[in-house]
Amino acid sequence: MYVDLGNVLDSTPGLSREQLERLDDRVADAHERIEAGRADAEHGYAALNLPETTDPDEIRAAVEPFGDAEAVLTVGIGGSALGAATVSEALGGDVDAYFLDNVDPEDTTRLLDSLPLDSTAVNVVSRSGTTAETLANFLVVREAMESADVDWTEQTFVTTGDEGNLRQLAEKHDLPALKVPDGVPGRFSALSTVGLACAAIQGHDLDAILAGAADEADKLSGSLFDSPAYAYGAASYALDRRGATVNAMMPYAESLEYFAEWFAQLWAESLGKEGVGQTPARALGATDQHSQLQLYRAGRHDKLVTLVRPREREDRPIPETELEGLSYLGGSTLGELLDAEFEATEASLAAAGQPNIRVEIDRVDERGVGELLYGMEAACVLYGELENVSTFTQPAVEWGKRAARGLLGGGDFEEADAVSDKTRLEIE
Amino acid sequence: MYVDLGNVLDSTPGLSREQLERLDDRVADAHERIEAGRADAEHGYAALNLPETTDPDEIRAAVEPFGDAEAVLTVGIGGSALGAATVSEALGGDVDAYFLDNVDPEDTTRLLDSLPLDSTAVNVVSRSGTTAETLANFLVVREAMESADVDWTEQTFVTTGDEGNLRQLAEKHDLPALKVPDGVPGRFSALSTVGLACAAIQGHDLDAILAGAADEADKLSGSLFDSPAYAYGAASYALDRRGATVNAMMPYAESLEYFAEWFAQLWAESLGKEGVGQTPARALGATDQHSQLQLYRAGRHDKLVTLVRPREREDRPIPETELEGLSYLGGSTLGELLDAEFEATEASLAAAGQPNIRVEIDRVDERGVGELLYGMEAACVLYGELENVSTFTQPAVEWGKRAARGLLGGGDFEEADAVSDKTRLEIE
Repeated sequence: MYVDLGNVLDSTPGLSREQLERLDDRVADAHERIEAGRADAEHGYAALNLPETTDPDEIRAAVEPFGDAEAVLTVGIGGSALGAATVSEALGGDVDAYFLDNVDPEDTTRLLDSLPLDSTAVNVVSRSGTTAETLANFLVVREAMESADVDWTEQTFVTTGDEGNLRQLAEKHDLPALKVPDGVPGRFSALSTVGLACAAIQGHDLDAILAGAADEADKLSGSLFDSPAYAYGAASYALDRRGATVNAMMPYAESLEYFAEWFAQLWAESLGKEGVGQTPARALGATDQHSQLQLYRAGRHDKLVTLVRPREREDRPIPETELEGLSYLGGSTLGELLDAEFEATEASLAAAGQPNIRVEIDRVDERGVGELLYGMEAACVLYGELENVSTFTQPAVEWGKRAARGLLGGGDFEEADAVSDKTRLEIE
Repeated sequence: MYVDLGNVLDSTPGLSREQLERLDDRVADAHERIEAGRADAEHGYAALNLPETTDPDEIRAAVEPFGDAEAVLTVGIGGSALGAATVSEALGGDVDAYFLDNVDPEDTTRLLDSLPLDSTAVNVVSRSGTTAETLANFLVVREAMESADVDWTEQTFVTTGDEGNLRQLAEKHDLPALKVPDGVPGRFSALSTVGLACAAIQGHDLDAILAGAADEADKLSGSLFDSPAYAYGAASYALDRRGATVNAMMPYAESLEYFAEWFAQLWAESLGKEGVGQTPARALGATDQHSQLQLYRAGRHDKLVTLVRPREREDRPIPETELEGLSYLGGSTLGELLDAEFEATEASLAAAGQPNIRVEIDRVDERGVGELLYGMEAACVLYGELENVSTFTQPAVEWGKRAARGLLGGGDFEEADAVSDKTRLEIE
């Protein structure tokens, strides 16, 4: 991963070289804490050890029975789906990957009606085995398979903790079971069993993904000037503190569209605590130049725009043309056009004094994806240290879970009463 | 469309009933200006007349030759694609809809390799006929058809202005041609030829879409308490002014995922001007409860969360289960689970004092989509009046267009020089 901070030097808000150097002292301290956490495999910090601790052979063995699957369906939500979706979307492949990560009945029906159920591998992912959305979806999928006379026990495996419903189910029906690693929160689990089983079924090279991540891990050091991940994390933190409270993640590659979504979870759930935390916004280049760019350039100076691209792609020529005013496109390529737009947008933001950071990988391949995911995770952990928040917890989501459970008759929760007490001011 | 402002009354930032009443005087003035603009079909305001001025027969006639198409491919970018994608994604249908709205060579190749080119209708959409991305993609698609021995002139139609490359092309090859209406900026064109041709090929009821929009138009009045669209626009504006500088658009329906993207363009490009403008962020319920909610509830009080849902859906039961702790789900439905999560999230934000607005439609059907799109457009126009920005222009995107064109050898533009002069501070 390459990170270029050049365009934050003269922006508003911005960071001078001196400010970056002063920040670097704090990075050194934070790095020590992070390394100590990794050494003890503390909760959360353990995620930064995944390039070493994930065993690709274990994953390949678990999915071996599904070698002939035409499709793989991951049933999970949040961190139990986003990492797998990000890797799978980035790398493509002949085995179609689907994700049931919502409880929308219309969408679920549409998906189940279109899937070849008898040749679909189903991966049910929940550490606790009690995630309401995931288990509800699993029950629906299982019933659909039974209705189609498909033996669900032959098509299903689970990714879960040592105990709970899914573990018991696996034991009862002799399903392959992968272990969600201890100490790794869902949003940091892309490089574990949770994120890689789908990629394994698609035939991607897990070793290369982990090697890319390991490369990025090796660069972590006591200075932001030596580590792309820390450079990104430290600059994002400092810009947020100076007013760039929104981080618009804008990859220039359709294959990285899910990456922006994964990043949004990583950033929001890790850093959104106690009245702080940069708000992630998702964008996609070049498309969103025709959508968000007007605001990013001419709106408030409260945004950092992160532009991400691969340095190389499979390209495609633009045919020569007789069309008026467009001869300059002929003989060029789509990739050159996309790169020109990337650099033009970056310069356009810089010329308007809007802070932006360039993040690059060599290619959107296994190694590149490993670098990018690990790099952003380490950036996030560093940001959390600098901000002094509890990076690896998500206490604010519990209130709503209790309320929803109460509403569905799953127990007596006072939060559910607040729902019926809602203040109304309806205009129709 | 129904808008419930109840949860902004006690939030921080928030709006009291008195503040809303004072704001209503300004809404009355703004409504007068909007009505005057509509009466004169002024640039931009003309978009609010589309429920009357769009002729569905004209659209149906233009696409009649493509009645047997298996797929429809819209080649356009920004407002030339997003409206059509939003309508098409919301309504579904047996004819698959694809959108080439980026210039990513890998993605383009993947798409063209998978499309049944000889039964795909291609709609090339660009008002000017010179949009670089769209024309480059058209050239690539045309060549792919020629290579596959498909007569592209039999499969292609254009949606464009009275003049320019696409108009000439249509005349030369006798292609069906739809007119982009005058005075309607791309991001406000969903209810015109631009947004509806794709839906027509899919067999959706254009009259019902326009009728839904007309219903919403009929409710525009001098008071935010009588018009859901104005209620939403006025409250969003006032909350932004009080510190809710981010608007997280969070539909609880997979079919409305594109709607959030369309909204982001509408909001960003219309209102992001001269140092102001609320930043749209896209989210999706219930999925993003496991992603963004931690931040939305516990982060800075700088966000308005807009929760959107249909009041009715095709539902699907959750099977009864023996799984421990989950019996409460059995006998319930996915739709009930999703609604419980919607209401729980809303209450959870309210309990934390985070401002949120509920927006509902009866169903995600033609009429509902018409209401929702028109309602949000009218809300945006009102917001622009209250903020006193030039809602219908997008001057800030021109700098980058010139730079990109210069980089590709399409002329001598000084903006291109800024790209090579980029300040670098690369960490690798």
